[in-house]
Amino acid sequence: MTADTSTTASAPAPTAARGTDAAASPTPTGPIPVPADGSPRLDVEMVSEALLGSWADARRDARERAARPEMHRPMDASVAEHRERVFGQLRILAEEEVSLPMLPEHLGGPNDNGANVAAFEELVVADPSLQIKAGVQWGLFTSAIVQLGDEEQQKAWVPGAMSLETPGAFAMTEIGHGSDVQSLATTATFDPEGGEDGEWVINTPFRAAWKDFLGNAAIHARAATVFARLITNGVDHGVHCFYVPVRDAEGNLLPGVQSEDDGEKGGLNGIDNGRLAFDHVRVPRRNLLNRYGDVAADGTYSSPIDSPGRRFFTMIGTLVQGRVSLDGSAIRASQLALHIAITYATQRRQFTAADPTRETVLMDYQAHLHRLLPKLAATYAGAFAHEQLLHAFDDVFSGRGDTPEGREDLETLAATLKPTSTRLALDTIQECREACGGSGFMAENQLVGLHQDLDVYATFEGDNTILLQLVAKRLLSDYTSELKNVDRAGIGRFIAQRAEVLAKRHTPWARLGQSVSDRGNARRAFDSMRSAEFQEEMLADRARVKVEEVALALRSTARMSPADAAAEVNKHQVEMLDAARAHADLVRWRAFTAGIEAMEDEGTRAVLTDVRDLFGLTAINDDLAWFLLSGMISTQRGRQIEGDLRRLLWRLRPHVLDLVAAFDIRLGHVRAPIALGGEQERQDEAAAYFRAQRASQDAPVSEKALRDAEKRARRAQGKKGSSR
Amino acid sequence: MTADTSTTASAPAPTAARGTDAAASPTPTGPIPVPADGSPRLDVEMVSEALLGSWADARRDARERAARPEMHRPMDASVAEHRERVFGQLRILAEEEVSLPMLPEHLGGPNDNGANVAAFEELVVADPSLQIKAGVQWGLFTSAIVQLGDEEQQKAWVPGAMSLETPGAFAMTEIGHGSDVQSLATTATFDPEGGEDGEWVINTPFRAAWKDFLGNAAIHARAATVFARLITNGVDHGVHCFYVPVRDAEGNLLPGVQSEDDGEKGGLNGIDNGRLAFDHVRVPRRNLLNRYGDVAADGTYSSPIDSPGRRFFTMIGTLVQGRVSLDGSAIRASQLALHIAITYATQRRQFTAADPTRETVLMDYQAHLHRLLPKLAATYAGAFAHEQLLHAFDDVFSGRGDTPEGREDLETLAATLKPTSTRLALDTIQECREACGGSGFMAENQLVGLHQDLDVYATFEGDNTILLQLVAKRLLSDYTSELKNVDRAGIGRFIAQRAEVLAKRHTPWARLGQSVSDRGNARRAFDSMRSAEFQEEMLADRARVKVEEVALALRSTARMSPADAAAEVNKHQVEMLDAARAHADLVRWRAFTAGIEAMEDEGTRAVLTDVRDLFGLTAINDDLAWFLLSGMISTQRGRQIEGDLRRLLWRLRPHVLDLVAAFDIRLGHVRAPIALGGEQERQDEAAAYFRAQRASQDAPVSEKALRDAEKRARRAQGKKGSSR
Repeated sequence: MTADTSTTASAPAPTAARGTDAAASPTPTGPIPVPADGSPRLDVEMVSEALLGSWADARRDARERAARPEMHRPMDASVAEHRERVFGQLRILAEEEVSLPMLPEHLGGPNDNGANVAAFEELVVADPSLQIKAGVQWGLFTSAIVQLGDEEQQKAWVPGAMSLETPGAFAMTEIGHGSDVQSLATTATFDPEGGEDGEWVINTPFRAAWKDFLGNAAIHARAATVFARLITNGVDHGVHCFYVPVRDAEGNLLPGVQSEDDGEKGGLNGIDNGRLAFDHVRVPRRNLLNRYGDVAADGTYSSPIDSPGRRFFTMIGTLVQGRVSLDGSAIRASQLALHIAITYATQRRQFTAADPTRETVLMDYQAHLHRLLPKLAATYAGAFAHEQLLHAFDDVFSGRGDTPEGREDLETLAATLKPTSTRLALDTIQECREACGGSGFMAENQLVGLHQDLDVYATFEGDNTILLQLVAKRLLSDYTSELKNVDRAGIGRFIAQRAEVLAKRHTPWARLGQSVSDRGNARRAFDSMRSAEFQEEMLADRARVKVEEVALALRSTARMSPADAAAEVNKHQVEMLDAARAHADLVRWRAFTAGIEAMEDEGTRAVLTDVRDLFGLTAINDDLAWFLLSGMISTQRGRQIEGDLRRLLWRLRPHVLDLVAAFDIRLGHVRAPIALGGEQERQDEAAAYFRAQRASQDAPVSEKALRDAEKRARRAQGKKGSSR
Repeated sequence: MTADTSTTASAPAPTAARGTDAAASPTPTGPIPVPADGSPRLDVEMVSEALLGSWADARRDARERAARPEMHRPMDASVAEHRERVFGQLRILAEEEVSLPMLPEHLGGPNDNGANVAAFEELVVADPSLQIKAGVQWGLFTSAIVQLGDEEQQKAWVPGAMSLETPGAFAMTEIGHGSDVQSLATTATFDPEGGEDGEWVINTPFRAAWKDFLGNAAIHARAATVFARLITNGVDHGVHCFYVPVRDAEGNLLPGVQSEDDGEKGGLNGIDNGRLAFDHVRVPRRNLLNRYGDVAADGTYSSPIDSPGRRFFTMIGTLVQGRVSLDGSAIRASQLALHIAITYATQRRQFTAADPTRETVLMDYQAHLHRLLPKLAATYAGAFAHEQLLHAFDDVFSGRGDTPEGREDLETLAATLKPTSTRLALDTIQECREACGGSGFMAENQLVGLHQDLDVYATFEGDNTILLQLVAKRLLSDYTSELKNVDRAGIGRFIAQRAEVLAKRHTPWARLGQSVSDRGNARRAFDSMRSAEFQEEMLADRARVKVEEVALALRSTARMSPADAAAEVNKHQVEMLDAARAHADLVRWRAFTAGIEAMEDEGTRAVLTDVRDLFGLTAINDDLAWFLLSGMISTQRGRQIEGDLRRLLWRLRPHVLDLVAAFDIRLGHVRAPIALGGEQERQDEAAAYFRAQRASQDAPVSEKALRDAEKRARRAQGKKGSSR
């Protein structure tokens, strides 16, 4: 292992030791822009600290925990072995009271939700199965009791859930309904004659209503928080949550409860996902978690929230925590993948270019920079955005910012970021896997397992497509309420104005403005595209105009039949998703920019600004046709942007190891041999062998060299002959 | 299982039963364009036959074989179990003499290479591990002996290799050198004193020279075809191939041979990949496979090919077969994934739109069409392109077209298509996995396993990036030789001409031409963008101009030092890869178009032309900024293209089941319960339950319905009150 790798992969070390790699010395591909004395340099510890964020201590502890070998994902384990291992790890977490911070004061906790989620996110680098199984037990099952139960219910069931005495399943999704939770078919019918003061009869009416994909359901769960339609006095009050014991202390299913094993999955095989069904299972009246809806002993229903729709979404809204933590762990997984691939790329060499005895390091190939660095930039943007999300979450869950608007904003932000970061993680891990060639395919190098486990992050806790559609709807309704605040005459003026703005963009005049300001000077155009103002204007206007275009296209639906309106909305679904993604780019760009502004070191700001520019300009370039067609970017600038992006790649080349070092990926997190110096060691050994061979002078001569020498001799002979 | 699914998933059935699915009846999302009487309809059998191609019989047999349960990928098997299972399957293939067609006449075969590769490709739907392990044994190990050995060597070793009496490893790649085969470090030094008439001493000089990632190496291999530097009389003649026994009949490593197990991989765990090293292992002189280079007993080297470079590439060129078969199997894997996801999408329903009792089928969501149909179109294009590749391969390997140009064209075509189809397969499988939600993540539904196994197809048999770079270099050299055929004055004229063409495009005049021809008529513009002439012109010009731009940018390198030239080429690497991809789009588009022209049924041509247009316009749209900036597409057309693409999606909607039916994916190939009708069955059961409940009139009333009724009553009361 080289000194450099070991500092990268372990606890903070002197900054001076970082940021230089084998390739920073001149290489056969030509001069690499190494920062000269006094040129910008990243302060790795400062950036590291910024990325640790507000809950730095919780993250530090969690990183130490995640580095412990007993917490790690096993190699070549059977599904059964992996499940038992992870269940054992869960017991360690319970013993160490890792999730205590989530509890409110009256349950003996500090109500430090930000710290709790931050700590759980970090488990992803130990084993994503552990992160998700812990998430099921405490983030979902226990949290449902805390969030939806009253104090008596909390005191009855939370201690067992916290200590893992009662492993629990979170029984929401059914085979027939995943994304559409409102249509769940399991019923909970109140029987006032049952038990002491009435009982619930939990029932699965048909196969599609079986609960499915539930962590803990196949083996470990003793109880479940079951989402079912509350029916009393012949009225269906919609989906509510019930606490239902499912297995006895020996693990036998209780009467009326059925369970099936989901078996092998694409990843996360440390979790015993399974199905549950209920055949008229009876639980006491008090097993309805009653914060948002209750039934008296006589069967009378009551709720603090009048509207059934708003009541449902309030209950479901308590689940936002899962989305928040997936966002954070997806970013962390991207960091790990980039750490592995970039470390390897600065050591691995392949093909000689000019120097016949020294091959080119992968990181010096333009295509390699091009495939990895934009992902690195997006991962930075995502990390800063996640910190904002975690703050929004902590504000609401601490009660400090718990207003309907605060909750709504939190849900929109989570719905914006979770699809973005989980998509990024999958794309990044796959790119890293391929960038590491055959070695990337070996399980020991972690990338394939990471992809397998993270795959379903795009689906659970809110399918990515569904979440982005929620975001689009929110953006549309915000846009529409803006319009509503304008009087009728005003709307006409407003629309005319916007039409004028859009029309103007479509003329060459707007573009001419950019061309004039650039004045054929590539350097000036580069500088102006790198300005925060330019990028913000582009990204903000794009997000705004895309929403506006959909809103205008859908104005006619107000006068349509529901069927026609639905068909019309469906015709714009792809545009809606696109608008939501544009919004996500803007949110991340702004968070990244704010994060940089908070840095005190000028060199650090300079390097990170290049990274931010890479993120911003990549986002613009990926949608360049739209910018050109809308007239927001002139053809002159458009023609230049790819070249500018490549220039940024080379500017960032000397900083790549610093940039991944700031992720604070430690030994134990990274277990991939290719990122632990083995590659460098092998190359040094080979280089020493060839050096010794050359020195000993008994190296074989290559046939090609011989032939070239012969040719030269013949030519010399020929010349002599002709000169004679 | 519905009748419809069963016909889709089994042998050919009456065409009339196809192409209608639950969604073809009116749905809540509005009218779906169902083909009316007499409107175009796909003749499924005709298309199926066309996709079977020239080696239809071989494919049909192979499809039957791949449907047999004993050939299937196991569920939740350990690495060890999976390996043994696949080795057993290999024995079945050997007994059934499946690879006999590969042998030339003098070895008792029909020399039917096209049939041989076609049959092997089909194994991918049984288990990709089986396909690849068979590929190692016969496509690489046996093939190396056949292609590189003389008749005596073939007769000595081919029978054991064919019968699996000698399982073999193909020992080319080393830890230190994968893509750069020319730099392999294993040595084979001739010792004229050894053995009867001289011996080779095979040696691994350092750790980086260990052979790695070799199928069969960890356990099963008895022999290996080892690529090593041939050294005799102090001269290194470059990499040659040697037949080296590695284990005895009991499976013990022979003296001097070391082996390590690669262990668990991201997929293909049915193959025992491993490492091999040689510590001065001696084999007889005749164990050099001597077709392209031989050594006499006195150590004198001879070769029919003078240039060491050309000799090396000729030897390596015999390996093109692996790339050809990966291209075919990647397309087949995409077909399977699309079959599963599209079948499920026509049955699965989620969310009600207008009709409260009937949810919308997934396939009717615009976003769902948008994510799956372009992949379907690219899979069709890839299938037709593969058939051309297989012909080129068969021509060369049969000897009919075995010219240097024929070989070079074959290698370029394989290098063009293998990266394209393996990329497509990974993207398609992942999209299908996500489109199937949580069910897509269950191993039983095949998609996750398929992604895991196909992952490394992007890397082995030529890394995708390296292959695309080869293609770009070939395109550049073709371009340069074109220029070379022009005299000096001509070059000046030529460049001036091209510059004028390019400059003209950058002016608004060229675009104005398109605008005038469209005349503000969206329908006319749509028709003209759908014309084959327009698409071909766009795709061909793009491929040409992208090469041209790189060529012009690199002209100065001729006068540079090697180091500077290498640095300059590296600055254009991303553009080179981009040019190669543009070329791949053109090749596939042309193959698809030629395939359609050969169809005799008008309805079939009409539907497939829509699919082709979706492929062509998607390719153009994905690179739209480039087309706009180069002036090849007017802003008017540019603005319209997305809308046109969506129109195509809806036009194709009624044909999706026909289009996947033509893939002839059979029961046994598809084993995913979600594609075998289970979903439809569950929905029918649920629908029947709700129907019965409504009929019995004891269904609970929803709270919302009650409240709405109350509101209406109050309003009526209020009206009465006010009218009083």
